[in-house]
Amino acid sequence: MIIVLKPNSTVEQIDHIVTTIHEMGLKTDVSRGIKRTIIGVIGEEDLLRNAPLQAIPGVEEVVPILKPYKLASREYQPDDSVIDVGRGVKVGGGSLAMIAGPCAIEGREILLEIAKHVKAAGANILRGGAYKPRTSPYSFQGLGEDGLKILREVGDELEMPVVTEVMDPRQVALVDRYTDIFQIGARNMQNFNLLAEVGQTKRPVLLKRGMSATVVDLLMSAEYILAGGNKRVILCERGIRSFDSSTRNLLDLSIVPSAKGLSHLPLIVDPSHATGRPDLIPSMSLAAVAAGADGVHIEVHSCPERAMSDGPQALLPKQYAEVVEQMRQVAGLFHKTIPVAHGK
Amino acid sequence: MIIVLKPNSTVEQIDHIVTTIHEMGLKTDVSRGIKRTIIGVIGEEDLLRNAPLQAIPGVEEVVPILKPYKLASREYQPDDSVIDVGRGVKVGGGSLAMIAGPCAIEGREILLEIAKHVKAAGANILRGGAYKPRTSPYSFQGLGEDGLKILREVGDELEMPVVTEVMDPRQVALVDRYTDIFQIGARNMQNFNLLAEVGQTKRPVLLKRGMSATVVDLLMSAEYILAGGNKRVILCERGIRSFDSSTRNLLDLSIVPSAKGLSHLPLIVDPSHATGRPDLIPSMSLAAVAAGADGVHIEVHSCPERAMSDGPQALLPKQYAEVVEQMRQVAGLFHKTIPVAHGK
Amino acid sequence: MIIVLKPNSTVEQIDHIVTTIHEMGLKTDVSRGIKRTIIGVIGEEDLLRNAPLQAIPGVEEVVPILKPYKLASREYQPDDSVIDVGRGVKVGGGSLAMIAGPCAIEGREILLEIAKHVKAAGANILRGGAYKPRTSPYSFQGLGEDGLKILREVGDELEMPVVTEVMDPRQVALVDRYTDIFQIGARNMQNFNLLAEVGQTKRPVLLKRGMSATVVDLLMSAEYILAGGNKRVILCERGIRSFDSSTRNLLDLSIVPSAKGLSHLPLIVDPSHATGRPDLIPSMSLAAVAAGADGVHIEVHSCPERAMSDGPQALLPKQYAEVVEQMRQVAGLFHKTIPVAHGK
Amino acid sequence: MIIVLKPNSTVEQIDHIVTTIHEMGLKTDVSRGIKRTIIGVIGEEDLLRNAPLQAIPGVEEVVPILKPYKLASREYQPDDSVIDVGRGVKVGGGSLAMIAGPCAIEGREILLEIAKHVKAAGANILRGGAYKPRTSPYSFQGLGEDGLKILREVGDELEMPVVTEVMDPRQVALVDRYTDIFQIGARNMQNFNLLAEVGQTKRPVLLKRGMSATVVDLLMSAEYILAGGNKRVILCERGIRSFDSSTRNLLDLSIVPSAKGLSHLPLIVDPSHATGRPDLIPSMSLAAVAAGADGVHIEVHSCPERAMSDGPQALLPKQYAEVVEQMRQVAGLFHKTIPVAHGK
Repeated sequence: MIIVLKPNSTVEQIDHIVTTIHEMGLKTDVSRGIKRTIIGVIGEEDLLRNAPLQAIPGVEEVVPILKPYKLASREYQPDDSVIDVGRGVKVGGGSLAMIAGPCAIEGREILLEIAKHVKAAGANILRGGAYKPRTSPYSFQGLGEDGLKILREVGDELEMPVVTEVMDPRQVALVDRYTDIFQIGARNMQNFNLLAEVGQTKRPVLLKRGMSATVVDLLMSAEYILAGGNKRVILCERGIRSFDSSTRNLLDLSIVPSAKGLSHLPLIVDPSHATGRPDLIPSMSLAAVAAGADGVHIEVHSCPERAMSDGPQALLPKQYAEVVEQMRQVAGLFHKTIPVAHGK
Repeated sequence: MIIVLKPNSTVEQIDHIVTTIHEMGLKTDVSRGIKRTIIGVIGEEDLLRNAPLQAIPGVEEVVPILKPYKLASREYQPDDSVIDVGRGVKVGGGSLAMIAGPCAIEGREILLEIAKHVKAAGANILRGGAYKPRTSPYSFQGLGEDGLKILREVGDELEMPVVTEVMDPRQVALVDRYTDIFQIGARNMQNFNLLAEVGQTKRPVLLKRGMSATVVDLLMSAEYILAGGNKRVILCERGIRSFDSSTRNLLDLSIVPSAKGLSHLPLIVDPSHATGRPDLIPSMSLAAVAAGADGVHIEVHSCPERAMSDGPQALLPKQYAEVVEQMRQVAGLFHKTIPVAHGK
Repeated sequence: MIIVLKPNSTVEQIDHIVTTIHEMGLKTDVSRGIKRTIIGVIGEEDLLRNAPLQAIPGVEEVVPILKPYKLASREYQPDDSVIDVGRGVKVGGGSLAMIAGPCAIEGREILLEIAKHVKAAGANILRGGAYKPRTSPYSFQGLGEDGLKILREVGDELEMPVVTEVMDPRQVALVDRYTDIFQIGARNMQNFNLLAEVGQTKRPVLLKRGMSATVVDLLMSAEYILAGGNKRVILCERGIRSFDSSTRNLLDLSIVPSAKGLSHLPLIVDPSHATGRPDLIPSMSLAAVAAGADGVHIEVHSCPERAMSDGPQALLPKQYAEVVEQMRQVAGLFHKTIPVAHGK
Repeated sequence: MIIVLKPNSTVEQIDHIVTTIHEMGLKTDVSRGIKRTIIGVIGEEDLLRNAPLQAIPGVEEVVPILKPYKLASREYQPDDSVIDVGRGVKVGGGSLAMIAGPCAIEGREILLEIAKHVKAAGANILRGGAYKPRTSPYSFQGLGEDGLKILREVGDELEMPVVTEVMDPRQVALVDRYTDIFQIGARNMQNFNLLAEVGQTKRPVLLKRGMSATVVDLLMSAEYILAGGNKRVILCERGIRSFDSSTRNLLDLSIVPSAKGLSHLPLIVDPSHATGRPDLIPSMSLAAVAAGADGVHIEVHSCPERAMSDGPQALLPKQYAEVVEQMRQVAGLFHKTIPVAHGK
């Protein structure tokens, strides 16, 4: 940590700062420049991070040097994490997750129909929401445990691992009985108690980036899960808030190389929620694979105009099959493959 | 709701759209222009809101007309809500909430010292965090129930109502035993299960705006609480994410007249979290009162450089007393007053 | 300037960096921490600013310490600049600019009518656009020199200084013959050749903040004008781009204390362009004065529904008179006054 | 255009609105719903666009239906524009522009060295700045006409078309003598007089997206050039302002399919300015090609640490050669090719 002092800081102020830092059990390295005095602060990471150095009179700026996350960092683990989600499907290290399915679980028949389509097209993880975080209290909120049962049955029947959202720490034990992967939605990326709760389980967690989260914020939220003992976190970019209302959110593909440079965790991309527009999803899926993403998450519905949630942004099964075929070709250029889900 | 069709939409598409809408139990009003056909959709609000009209082929744009919130709207209740938070303190309708205190409850003595200062300065609600939503799992997370007990005792001793954050639906019953007002933090503004849980209680709720929430998003989250039966919601602006890193967040004072135009709920402003800079807090507090806010929330600490959380953004008690005095004068111009907390 | 090296930087890399810096005529101060080596770079500001230190292998981060602007800074001039714009009107140092008038100059009669209204209400500077930066090439582009003549005549008749936008370096000499103050619009805040051109004149310049400009960007653009020899720059906040489309732009009032802390230049606020909504302009004007702004710029039109540009955001003369009266009261609390324009 | 009235609008207000619209030479179609009255307005596009309907009492919202740009739209020209920039290089319609070179022209020898490298790697257009829009008036501003001469000579020697920025309407005639393509920088995207000036020439124009421009804003700026008679506009995405400071700007690849859906103009991507980070440029270049971009613009310097401008974001020639080879493979999947510049 580096402390930059104000141009007019006095000798008394400098002495007070140095004394205060020493009282915290930290060491100092004072460097006097022509116009400014700068103090390097050396010591334990955690002490440093919580010290309110900015509040000391005479301090102009505090520049952190050490990264605030540890278990999520490349320094801690140089090699890519590869997450085994079951049924022969691995995420990371050259294996691409192809997550597909409807926004919400609406019933057994319709889910089975959609699941057959996406499996045939190449999807290797089935998605579907039983608990839906809806902006309006009056919108369809999901089928709850009935939905979870349907998802489990359809996943088993088609031999696909399944992923579903958990919104509440009180739901974790229940959802854990049915799902292969927990999803933490964008709105809950900083619901720290929920993160801590799934950190206590042994299931992989698909952690979606919040709408105004920086790459560091995302890695800090992953750190909550990792610090609880659960090492199986998959990051997911799904668009951030921006000023152009022509897309639902703004897909930030630069986070793919950026997060993967900082962290060993796999990262997948969700162009469905990012753009909200079926006409943009295919090209953004291809771009995601070319950018180095470890998978793509796409909402698919066989009858979007009757979907109970987010219908307008779903691809038709036929469109999905085409884009998977193209993603496979792009992936091939980089020697990556799409595993086939099967068996137990 | 208005449906704008694509320029080249066919008669078959128009018929299909009209039929689909009728099957949903809604009525249509078709208007053919020179270049476009437009369909007005008429019917029950809730049916309309959930209909995936955008997904029907031939539709270019769906323009919602009715507001998605109801109980929070001025149409539903034209007069300002005035929230009685106890000990003679009302928020709204000309009475200003002056919420002050440290970021975190650190101990009985220090809280009592700070509370005495802020009460003497004119604060009428005492704040302090017992559960802290920290970005890092390694930062100080708050004293928990011990902190709640201290807050209650100090509030009682100084005859001030108290407000503290609740982060988890499982904490609601516990926090309810100690606090006068629940705070929902910015990161939990769309933690819908938590909103529903405090909506079941009878305590006032201070609902902070999320970092990327629009004014409509904020009112929709208030609607979750109101729909549960709890009518006592106080909105709070605390800054949004923006591109200039010279302040912690970007204070959006235009939401004061904007939200109060759309809704009857009171709205207060928190310049401490919005700016993160003590040098900007006084002028932003005055601006908030001039803009019509129903109160101001300021973090105060008697020794910011030793605070366990957010020390750098706290005002000193002396600075706080000065700004309250100035706010009182600005409020006087608009015939508003700052109630004094007292008695039971 | 501080250079933070990568954790694994080698002795050879450190030597190379130090040698490179010395070759640039700069001095170094190397400090080796437990995990990182940090190099302080000392020397001439301009050399430092242009040195591509980030590109040297082994460098992780370059932290600038010195501010990139000089003439605009409080360090260069501690006291507030007070800009005399003529006819007894000063801006800054306790004197508030009240700039009002229509978006575009549409004709002599209508401008005179509006000008009489705003002067009677307390406005002391008359605005009107003769060259309009319109998003569409098919929109009304302004009356050009005919408009300038009308503005000059009306200003003279009512004894008010006038301000009008200049969009092109080639227009500067012409506009200079008619106006008292040049306005540089938000879209041209980084039109550096235009800034340099008005920097060669002796007229005050009203410099509007660009839609995505930080406070430092704004001060750097002011520096272009100051560096040309023209010391009379008035900054203007007029809203930035953000994600909530309920207002045209997002008014950032925190830039008032922030910019005035960094710079001696006066700063006024334009709530008309910032919000685009007449219902929000009065409260945002009062908030601007309470925040410490040196003036407020408001569009006024006697018949908004027939205005040729930006009619929807204009206040009516009666509304303007009311808000000026209220601003006068808020200003009085801070011992500030609104000068009356008169004479020559 | 659709006018939505306020819920409580009176019959007199509706009559006034209808009369006012008729006086503008437009027709109306009034539709009374249960809660709202809606008026469709029909007529000439240009009349509609400039009518201040929002300002009429009783109006809640005005919803534009017709797009504000015309010549740039797919409706006007359904087939992709293919721009011939000389020496056998076409942009659009399956031909990719590979623009490369240093940020600034620094001298003949160094430019020739870099140009040989990038040509050998596959670049087909040479870039270099002679007029540099620098944030600071004290930074290197470019070599001016001397730089233009060098660029022309090196382009001719290597048989490559060249592109260089023009910042000022007064420079257009001069730059026109030396360049094959004008570049309009992001900061000048809404410098409408400059757009009009290059619209009068016959040279292709590379129009960069402003830092806070929506896709519609970008197309409107293209419309200024097209409306002047110059049909050869190439759009360029180069990143927008966002809240995460870990990249210089935020690359928005979704604008590739979005803009190409709305417009026939080709669009290329500049990951150098968008990210400002050499470690992210290769993957973002591949993603751009996979997303359907018509070319990629990359800054290359043979000695970034001695570059006079933007050194830290330049790729080394070797890195550039590798990424072009990979882009060629991705392009091949979509049956696109990279033309080789040659001859006259």
